[in-house]
Amino acid sequence: MMNTSNIPSYLHITEEGPREGFQIEPGPIATADKIRLINALSETGLTTIQVCSFVSERLVPGWADADDVVSALIKPDKVDYVALWFNARGLARAMNHADTLTLSGTIHTVASEAFCVSNLNRTLAENNAAMRLQTKAHQDNGLAIKKISVMAAFGCNFSGDVPVADVLRAVSDGMDIAHEASESIREIALADTMGWANPTLIQKVVGAVKDAWSDIPVRLHLHDTRGLGIANAYAGMCMGVDRFDTTVGGLGGCPFAAKRSNGNNPQRALPPGNIATEELVLLASEMGVETGVDIDALIDVGRQAESIVGHSLPSAALRGGSLSSYRRALTN
Amino acid sequence: MMNTSNIPSYLHITEEGPREGFQIEPGPIATADKIRLINALSETGLTTIQVCSFVSERLVPGWADADDVVSALIKPDKVDYVALWFNARGLARAMNHADTLTLSGTIHTVASEAFCVSNLNRTLAENNAAMRLQTKAHQDNGLAIKKISVMAAFGCNFSGDVPVADVLRAVSDGMDIAHEASESIREIALADTMGWANPTLIQKVVGAVKDAWSDIPVRLHLHDTRGLGIANAYAGMCMGVDRFDTTVGGLGGCPFAAKRSNGNNPQRALPPGNIATEELVLLASEMGVETGVDIDALIDVGRQAESIVGHSLPSAALRGGSLSSYRRALTN
Repeated sequence: MMNTSNIPSYLHITEEGPREGFQIEPGPIATADKIRLINALSETGLTTIQVCSFVSERLVPGWADADDVVSALIKPDKVDYVALWFNARGLARAMNHADTLTLSGTIHTVASEAFCVSNLNRTLAENNAAMRLQTKAHQDNGLAIKKISVMAAFGCNFSGDVPVADVLRAVSDGMDIAHEASESIREIALADTMGWANPTLIQKVVGAVKDAWSDIPVRLHLHDTRGLGIANAYAGMCMGVDRFDTTVGGLGGCPFAAKRSNGNNPQRALPPGNIATEELVLLASEMGVETGVDIDALIDVGRQAESIVGHSLPSAALRGGSLSSYRRALTN
Repeated sequence: MMNTSNIPSYLHITEEGPREGFQIEPGPIATADKIRLINALSETGLTTIQVCSFVSERLVPGWADADDVVSALIKPDKVDYVALWFNARGLARAMNHADTLTLSGTIHTVASEAFCVSNLNRTLAENNAAMRLQTKAHQDNGLAIKKISVMAAFGCNFSGDVPVADVLRAVSDGMDIAHEASESIREIALADTMGWANPTLIQKVVGAVKDAWSDIPVRLHLHDTRGLGIANAYAGMCMGVDRFDTTVGGLGGCPFAAKRSNGNNPQRALPPGNIATEELVLLASEMGVETGVDIDALIDVGRQAESIVGHSLPSAALRGGSLSSYRRALTN
C-alpha cells in the first residue's frame, strides 16, 4: 500500500515552455509567434510563466529577441511573468522590464562539480564566489533573493550518480550565501537537469532536503529524457511537493543528450525536455488535485506550439486529449 | 511520505509489441520483418513475448500472416511465445502451433457494457455466455484456463468513469465461469484499454481487487494514451503488482482515440498505445527491481522496430538511452 496522505491539494505550476522551448528550437521562431504563444498561455489559468532568457545572443541565438518579446507583452492581472538570467548583464536587461516582469533573485548551485565545470566553465568554489557577487548585484538593484536552485540534483552525464550528500552540500552552500547577505530563502528547487531521476531517488533526495530544511518548500524541475518524468512528479507529490516547472507540449529538449540517442527521426533528434504541463495538469486533476489550469485550453495552446515550431512535441496528452472532454460529451 | 514496502523485487514483463504493434500499423509490414523483430526481442532477456493475434484477416489485415510468422519462429529455451485469439477459429489456428506457442486460456470480461457492445458487439450477459462456450472449447482442446482479463477497467470512452463495483463484477463473472468449469484462475489482468487510469485510481481499483481475491496476483495492462502510463505502472508497483504487459518502443496505438486528437503530425496521428517496455525496464532497474532484461539490447531492438515501421515510436527512453551506458562510459 502507498501512504499518499502527503499529496498536496493544489499544485503551483511554473510554465517554462517559452523560455526552454525557444532557446533550443533550431528556429528561427518569429518574435510575433513567441508573443502569441505567451499570450495564449496566459489565458489558460496558468499563474506563472517564464517568458524568456536574458542570455548571450551568441550562446543562445533563440533568445536574441528577449527584449522585443517582453516589451510587447501586456501582463494580465492574475499572471506573473518571470525570466531567467545568469549574470549582471542579464540582470540589467531584466531590470529594464520591471513593469512587466516579476523579479527576484535565485542562487544557482550545482550538485555535480563535473557538470558545473562543463556547463558553467567554473568549479563549485568559483560558482559560489560568482553567486556571492550575483547576490550582491541583486541587492544593489533592490531585488530579494528568494530561491536556491540546484542543478544536476539527481545524476549527471559527466559524473554519473550524484550522492545525496552532494545535493545537501549544494543547498547548504546556497543557504550560507543567503545567510551572509541576510536574505531569506523561500524555496529550494531541485533540478533533474539530465533526466537521471527515478521515483525511489526522488523520495530519497526530496526526503533528505525536507529533513534538513523542513520549513522551506521544495520545487521540482523534472526532465522527461527517458520517459520517467511523470512518475517522478507523482513520487514528488507523494512526498508533499506542491510546485513544479513544466513546459507546454513538452517544449524544449535535452542539450546534454549524446548524439547516439538520436534514433532515426531528425525532427525528434533530441530526447524530450521538461515534463509536459498538460500531462502534469492531467495527472493532478484526475487525482483530485487543483492546478487552476483549464486542461482543454492548455492542450489547444500545446497544438499551437506544435504549429509554431513546425513539428510534433513529445507530450502524449496533446494527442490523447483530456478526459474532461469525454465526460462532457457523455453527459450532454 | 510513501510507504513503498510492497514494491516487488522482480517484475514479470509480457512483451506485446509484435501483436499490438503490427495489428495497428498501416503497413504492410513484411512477414520477414515481424520474424526478425520477434527473434531480436527473444535475445534481450524477455521471457514472455506475445508474437501474434489469430483474428479475422478482414478485421485485422496486419495479422493475416500470423500462421506464417509463427511457423518461422524457433522458440528459445528460456522464452515463452504466446498469442491472442477471441473465438474457436482463432483457438484452432493457435492449436496448430502448439510446438512453438505456450498455450492457455483466458476469460475476457469487460467492466463497461458500452465498450463491450461497441467493441465486441454483444452485451455483458452475451459476453459471459460466449466465455462459457470458449472455456468449454479450451477444455476440449486440453488447455487450462489460467487468467481473467478485464477490459476497460479504469474508464471508458463510451461510458466515462467506470465504478470500482463494475470491475469487481467483471472479475466475479469470470470467477463464476471458471468455477463452474472447475478451472483455477492464476492471474487477474486489469486493462486500462483507453488510457483513463491515474495513480489514485490504480490504487483504488487494484486495492479493491486484491482485497476481494487476495491470493491471486494482479497484472496491469496499461496504455500511455495521455502520458500517465509510467506513473500508473509505478503506482501499481507500490501496490505490489509484479507483472505488466508492455510494448517495445511503445509500439501500438489507441484505435479508440477520437480523430480530433490527431494534432498536426500525420505520422503520429494516434496517441501512444501501451507503455514502452524499455521505460518500464528502466523504471524498475533504476529502482533496484530486477526484470532480467538487458536495457541496452532492448533499446537497440526498439530502434529496429522504428526502422521496420518507418516512423519514430513514442518511447522517450529510445531517444534518451539508458543510464547504464553512461555509467559504463564513466567507469572505463
